[in-house]
Amino acid sequence: QKWRARAARVIPDGSFGHVRPEYYPPAYPQFYGRAAGARIWDVDGNPYIDLMCSWGPMIVGYRRPEVEDAYRREAEQRELAFGMSPRAVELAERFVSLVEGADWAMFQKNGGDATMLAVTVARQATGRRKLLRATGSYHGSTPWFTPIQAGITPEDRANLIEFAYNDVDSLEAAAREAGSDFAAAILTPHRHDTDSDSVPIEPGFARRLRELCDRQGAALILDDVRAGFRISMAGSWAPLGIAPDLCAFSKCIANGYPLAAVTGCERLRDAAASIYATGSFWYASGPMAASLACLEILEREDGIATMNARGTQLMEGMRQQADSHGVAAVLSGPSAMPDLTFQEGAPR
Amino acid sequence: QKWRARAARVIPDGSFGHVRPEYYPPAYPQFYGRAAGARIWDVDGNPYIDLMCSWGPMIVGYRRPEVEDAYRREAEQRELAFGMSPRAVELAERFVSLVEGADWAMFQKNGGDATMLAVTVARQATGRRKLLRATGSYHGSTPWFTPIQAGITPEDRANLIEFAYNDVDSLEAAAREAGSDFAAAILTPHRHDTDSDSVPIEPGFARRLRELCDRQGAALILDDVRAGFRISMAGSWAPLGIAPDLCAFSKCIANGYPLAAVTGCERLRDAAASIYATGSFWYASGPMAASLACLEILEREDGIATMNARGTQLMEGMRQQADSHGVAAVLSGPSAMPDLTFQEGAPR
Repeated sequence: QKWRARAARVIPDGSFGHVRPEYYPPAYPQFYGRAAGARIWDVDGNPYIDLMCSWGPMIVGYRRPEVEDAYRREAEQRELAFGMSPRAVELAERFVSLVEGADWAMFQKNGGDATMLAVTVARQATGRRKLLRATGSYHGSTPWFTPIQAGITPEDRANLIEFAYNDVDSLEAAAREAGSDFAAAILTPHRHDTDSDSVPIEPGFARRLRELCDRQGAALILDDVRAGFRISMAGSWAPLGIAPDLCAFSKCIANGYPLAAVTGCERLRDAAASIYATGSFWYASGPMAASLACLEILEREDGIATMNARGTQLMEGMRQQADSHGVAAVLSGPSAMPDLTFQEGAPR
Repeated sequence: QKWRARAARVIPDGSFGHVRPEYYPPAYPQFYGRAAGARIWDVDGNPYIDLMCSWGPMIVGYRRPEVEDAYRREAEQRELAFGMSPRAVELAERFVSLVEGADWAMFQKNGGDATMLAVTVARQATGRRKLLRATGSYHGSTPWFTPIQAGITPEDRANLIEFAYNDVDSLEAAAREAGSDFAAAILTPHRHDTDSDSVPIEPGFARRLRELCDRQGAALILDDVRAGFRISMAGSWAPLGIAPDLCAFSKCIANGYPLAAVTGCERLRDAAASIYATGSFWYASGPMAASLACLEILEREDGIATMNARGTQLMEGMRQQADSHGVAAVLSGPSAMPDLTFQEGAPR
């Protein structure tokens, strides 16, 4: 409460985005003092298990020694140099070898940088404008995508055409509307919208999407910012057998260090080379070294299998607890990304 | 050359943005191995003095111990927790106490996040769309601003109205054109466009800009991403006596750690609280601890005076060298941000 009061004086509302205070009951921990492994402590020293994985990024645990060592070794040598480091090349090689259909990679800082860059590459490659996206899907806080449109102009959204996730008719109507100006479609590997239950993608819907993009010469962009390296090490649609043209990654690729990535197919390489993509800290190699270590751990320890096993256990336990207390809980999502909501009337 | 060849296979053109290879002669160092103090070494071990300060961010030297210690102490405790840390509050307090006219602060990752957020706040506060900007000024690589418009749609630029920096007539024409839809004007504290000489701002022009914004109820945004804390610790227009409504900072506020900031006046606090502003790594407290240490060093050691003295010395030395070799060099910019170009015909 002391920090909350101080924050309210110098930060609008005291905090912003997904940690704005109105989203949390007053008793919910809001200022953190320590983190290690799966645990976090608030500034009063109360311990918690962070089932949110820091809203996604912490995939092999807070302060994981191998990742910390890799970051520190890199940072002590060359962190913060503005030019390329060998780590950028090694990490691009790693993404190309891991992600199905990826022939190149580029790196950024925010997940929203990655989705925006992918859209820009698609527009440059096609010379077209229209972007298809699913109603309610989150693709970052940039003006094109932000779910809260305060301060956003109609022109920011002028080239968006929406479809309903998993609804083939609606997708076909959107593709017809885009017509010869259809640059790209962007969507999450499964439906994991904020404030609603997760829904698996219908394989038939995904196949139809791939067909429509191919037939109309548009790019298919997979927004794997949240799900990437949780569902599969080869991109979240690899198990489905459908190859997107561009993939956006961020949340868990560097175990919390700020990094995002776009991978793409050979056909889009020239377009990717011709757009302007840059940022003051995009070339910092410390987070890239952390990413190499993080991906290595996930591969070596079969992190996907561990997440599936622990996620299944967690979902079963939550379901039992909910049932035994008569709470109408809804559990959804793949077991590596469980989603918990409550039926109407119950506290959120 | 070995890294360049490997990079070319897995990264479009081998590198992107301001480090794309076409910008550099082959003999220019392109992959870096080490950095310390003012010095960098390429991967072959050749030493250089980094007069570019890592394209801006390195303001108190690579691996500066006080900054590194502050980062490490913070990161070992609580780095990467998704919630707020006390450091966010302390840093917002610091910005509010340092920057003239600042009543609140918000933090991001890229300079382009900060300029975009400032524009969004202005649009939300005014309910208007039009943004005035100077032709040729750089405000980030987002679609609204990027200097290379590959993959950008006309709608991304639909609400931009351009004026010529320091040209009162052109500014007045732009403000007239914006009329009742005039949301904000954004500009750099002096003219420091890529590929051209730096030009000081005309005080009369700045005063007229402030008047026009006041009269038409628009917000004045200072893009202090490059110049911030190089010209003045109170914002780069403090010496001019003109208070912008919003300021965007990034480059050197955390000595290379990824961080950006927007400060604003009281009148815009509610608008800032109502927009959606978030990113996966925006709450990481390590870079905020580094920023507190960096700003403390700049204040304690009067960094501005040092930069002025060394910059003056550098510019005089470069001028003498150019003269003694008969090279037509043009030196411009404030002494803390020297700019070197060559007259036509000379190698860039």
